[in-house]
Amino acid sequence: MRLGDGVEWALHCCTVLGALPPEQTIPSSVLAEFHGVPSAYLAKQMQALSRAGIVQSVPGRNGGYKLARAADDISILDVVLAVEGPEPAFRCTEVRQQGPSAVAPARYVKPCGIAAAMWRAEEVFRQELDATTLGDLVSELDTGVDPEQTEKAIIWLSQRLGPATTPVNTPEKS
Amino acid sequence: MRLGDGVEWALHCCTVLGALPPEQTIPSSVLAEFHGVPSAYLAKQMQALSRAGIVQSVPGRNGGYKLARAADDISILDVVLAVEGPEPAFRCTEVRQQGPSAVAPARYVKPCGIAAAMWRAEEVFRQELDATTLGDLVSELDTGVDPEQTEKAIIWLSQRLGPATTPVNTPEKS
Repeated sequence: MRLGDGVEWALHCCTVLGALPPEQTIPSSVLAEFHGVPSAYLAKQMQALSRAGIVQSVPGRNGGYKLARAADDISILDVVLAVEGPEPAFRCTEVRQQGPSAVAPARYVKPCGIAAAMWRAEEVFRQELDATTLGDLVSELDTGVDPEQTEKAIIWLSQRLGPATTPVNTPEKS
Repeated sequence: MRLGDGVEWALHCCTVLGALPPEQTIPSSVLAEFHGVPSAYLAKQMQALSRAGIVQSVPGRNGGYKLARAADDISILDVVLAVEGPEPAFRCTEVRQQGPSAVAPARYVKPCGIAAAMWRAEEVFRQELDATTLGDLVSELDTGVDPEQTEKAIIWLSQRLGPATTPVNTPEKS
């Protein structure tokens, strides 16, 4: 079982967008350069986030992406499902309906016990991801990120995007 | 995120082995025919289960696979990790150490908050899978499987493996 790198990149990009003033937009190419990831591939992830209504694409010379709603209203699960798709990790191919012991399809009224057990585990996985928001990740930046990195990030983003890029997260939030 | 079909097949095979008398062995080829899955690919899954100490390969004319320990002592997680490998689904590539805001590697003392959140969710996923045993899946056969399918399975397996193949699970167990 493996989650694609796109999930990691999308979560980092959304956390950066959540740390900036709500109307501040960042082009996908700048997000790619800031995170040191391939621009073309990141563009696909940002488009997936846009289709899912997590980020909003603002056209124009100062355009780019911003969060489509408040960081506190977007869960990690929202981002993961936007990038990876809604399908469960365990796909039941109804093995029980194959082979010499199979009976008429109409007889399979209950879900397969194996699939049910796997899906119970996926449900708690999703519940846990849904319990953490982008707002939580932004707040965690204050305590989890080295102050030197935060300063370098603010300076670099300010030079690229203009002055209004002081992160909105404050120590009070964390 | 996707789990391979091998997980589904391995869980079905281990449940069948758990439902048979402890010393009853089944060749991988018979397990493949019983489940209607490709024999060569299933053989790889059975070898992975053997390497993980979940099943035991018994050589000889009446040889094949049997569970290496009691069905109640093997969790679904044991089977999933044996087939899929122990690596977490979310692989942190340390994106935070890339790009213009990166600082000296020694400054990254805390784990990335994004990775930590993802790994918390994987932990509850694994805990849930670890809470269900093959014994639970075997017991569930009594109530979850159509009696006609159970009868057809017993008859087919008896013809292939000899008479001592009455499932050990009884209605009392479910």
